[in-house]
Amino acid sequence: MLNLKFADGLIPVIVQDARSKDVLMMAYANEEAVRLTQQTGFAHYYSRSRKKLWKKGEESGHFQKVMRVLADCDEDCLIYEVEQTGAACHTGYDSCFYRTLEGTVIGTKVFDPGKVYGKKGH
Amino acid sequence: MLNLKFADGLIPVIVQDARSKDVLMMAYANEEAVRLTQQTGFAHYYSRSRKKLWKKGEESGHFQKVMRVLADCDEDCLIYEVEQTGAACHTGYDSCFYRTLEGTVIGTKVFDPGKVYGKKGH
Repeated sequence: MLNLKFADGLIPVIVQDARSKDVLMMAYANEEAVRLTQQTGFAHYYSRSRKKLWKKGEESGHFQKVMRVLADCDEDCLIYEVEQTGAACHTGYDSCFYRTLEGTVIGTKVFDPGKVYGKKGH
Repeated sequence: MLNLKFADGLIPVIVQDARSKDVLMMAYANEEAVRLTQQTGFAHYYSRSRKKLWKKGEESGHFQKVMRVLADCDEDCLIYEVEQTGAACHTGYDSCFYRTLEGTVIGTKVFDPGKVYGKKGH
């Protein structure tokens, strides 16, 4: 097991679709979130705004089954390789990275967020 | 142009190989680094440890030609889609993410860092 470095208790996590290799989202995990991800096989994160641990999909049903976790050379960043149910982004796009820097939409909308979430949130 | 959010002046950047879709590295950019990346077409970052702007490859020759820049829904994370010369990781591996969380090496070593760098560093 690598010796992960957490900055202020958190490590950034890049979430990649295991099949298409699309980058779906970026989030943060604390030690407990990494441990729960390994133990359960489903992606867990730590929300900096809500200051709480969360399991992706707990509200939307859009869970992420984690196939493999990779760490980088400095052991301060992770990749979760996942099988995504539904879509990763709370906006309804398949990936959070659905726009170029110029604002051109390049992603695909796969659900209506108003029908999935009671209120705005991942 | 999207209105990017910089936290303490920085935005995380996920670097993805435009062809293979492998995630190569994660780094940070400040506003100037994003601007220079757009103006020159080559990846620029901001080093938190060295506290300076850097152009990927300035020491190693392993430049990253940036084909497209994507932003996420919250406009607080970027993807640089790149054509990588040489390898992304200062360890000589093609990607910084060359190990699983358990420490198993899954990446490919493509250069000898002792021959490329005068001293350790990206």
